[in-house]
Amino acid sequence: MVNPMGFDFKGYLGEKRVQVDSALDEHFPRADGLTAELIEAMRYSLFAGGKRLRPILCIAGAEAVGGAGEQVLPVACALELIHTYSLIHDDLPLMDDDDLRRGKPTNHKVFGEAIALLAGDGLLTEAFSLMTSPYAIKNIEPASLLEVIQIIAVAAGCGGMVGGQVVDMQWEGRNAEFETVKFLHTHKTGAMIRASVTSGAIAAGAQASVVQRFSSYGYKIGLAFQISDDILDVEGDSEIMGKKAGADEEKGKTTYPSVLGMDESKKIQDALVQEAVQDLKVFGEAAEPLRQIAYYIIERKK
Amino acid sequence: MVNPMGFDFKGYLGEKRVQVDSALDEHFPRADGLTAELIEAMRYSLFAGGKRLRPILCIAGAEAVGGAGEQVLPVACALELIHTYSLIHDDLPLMDDDDLRRGKPTNHKVFGEAIALLAGDGLLTEAFSLMTSPYAIKNIEPASLLEVIQIIAVAAGCGGMVGGQVVDMQWEGRNAEFETVKFLHTHKTGAMIRASVTSGAIAAGAQASVVQRFSSYGYKIGLAFQISDDILDVEGDSEIMGKKAGADEEKGKTTYPSVLGMDESKKIQDALVQEAVQDLKVFGEAAEPLRQIAYYIIERKK
Repeated sequence: MVNPMGFDFKGYLGEKRVQVDSALDEHFPRADGLTAELIEAMRYSLFAGGKRLRPILCIAGAEAVGGAGEQVLPVACALELIHTYSLIHDDLPLMDDDDLRRGKPTNHKVFGEAIALLAGDGLLTEAFSLMTSPYAIKNIEPASLLEVIQIIAVAAGCGGMVGGQVVDMQWEGRNAEFETVKFLHTHKTGAMIRASVTSGAIAAGAQASVVQRFSSYGYKIGLAFQISDDILDVEGDSEIMGKKAGADEEKGKTTYPSVLGMDESKKIQDALVQEAVQDLKVFGEAAEPLRQIAYYIIERKK
Repeated sequence: MVNPMGFDFKGYLGEKRVQVDSALDEHFPRADGLTAELIEAMRYSLFAGGKRLRPILCIAGAEAVGGAGEQVLPVACALELIHTYSLIHDDLPLMDDDDLRRGKPTNHKVFGEAIALLAGDGLLTEAFSLMTSPYAIKNIEPASLLEVIQIIAVAAGCGGMVGGQVVDMQWEGRNAEFETVKFLHTHKTGAMIRASVTSGAIAAGAQASVVQRFSSYGYKIGLAFQISDDILDVEGDSEIMGKKAGADEEKGKTTYPSVLGMDESKKIQDALVQEAVQDLKVFGEAAEPLRQIAYYIIERKK
């Protein structure tokens, strides 16, 4: 791992994960009453051992421009809510029909399909509630907050994640062209990863020219992340990943390795990460977490 | 119909419906490309002949405090997107498993379950994109816009519509107590109807004390609307409604008529509408559309 400053990346990730987890726990306390099962279902997937990559990107984006993690926490948590909803809906029998996620039974396997659907709907909706909560309004400028919501909604919507999901589904079992695979990768996963880092910077008050650099960085690591997902599906260890390797080939999904080969895919992924790191040059030490996240994407095992 | 001022209510509804429809059409143009079917699925349900009750309540709320319909159009349209998403997900086989909606095949019957799920997800997400679009930001004060998003997200989320859906589903086929039915009615439908009128007033710049009156009006007509739904399910004409009457009894749903009897349900509904109209007294002629909407709720046939 490239780490010239001896930055304690593992410690950083651990600390931010705790910060995000306790904020999520506070926002979704266990509840009695008529909607107790809904809340339980949301918490089940929310606390199923996610890496918190998107919230940490948001916090690191804010810190890179002089903001604080506490300031952008509602945005960071909202990103995780949206990510979690997308996983729950994606796992449903009518979509990917997956039984395991992060080594645990998927939401609908535990709570049934109807509750899983509604838990997903609830998580997506609560993301926007959280971003306009009194805490968010107190800590983020109104104009910046509106811009953040716009960026996240666009990245999660039809021109972003949902659009990517549709293409993913429609092309399953068919030979897709490279341009289609690239669309899928930059939309299904990439758009929200890019929005995570830019929203953090914007929430912390960054100017448009600065945000542009994070946007470029985010685009590249988002694409690299999805390529690494493809690579892990071929070379990864099912036990470490908590999900079955080889699923892409089984389902007939067109991936970077299946179109370009494994060597070329790794080359592209490496180049994307190197270029992403270049985008951060002007920010110096403050952007070290973002640099380490870029390297981590290539090296991750799950 | 009580209409002392001879207000052309039918003309008003028609005019606003056209205004909302053309704004929705503009925001979701037909599209070529990889996500064409997604957009088509969203448009299918969006233009399936809805009454546009929620957007019109929003516009009427804005007009009652001196605002203009054009000003709050993004909010009005967002409410319809959220309403439409909830119908698509509700009709899915894993929920109510309905084949017909407004006399037409339901979304998943035409586009398949996966696209229907994603069309719903897309509509919900685009609602928040629309409310933070350049048009919205140009026409609504930032602080008001954030308050509007908060109110709508809370009304659509776990403490509102999604929570109501969960209770609706969990109590199907079981004898629910009156308090449970009231929770269901005020959450599943009532919360979004209430948010529709208050969000319009807030977006147009109304003060908190004024908004309180709309909130009270909205709560009452929201509950009255759901009671009238129960009544129509017993007494309504399937052909006019575009859906099968008697479905509640068939599914074993506890409703106002099934718990309190038909006469008592109608009495409660009438009283709610009368009280709602009282809430609007101070607004004079500017609130006439909202008064007519309250009366319409009792008299509607679909």
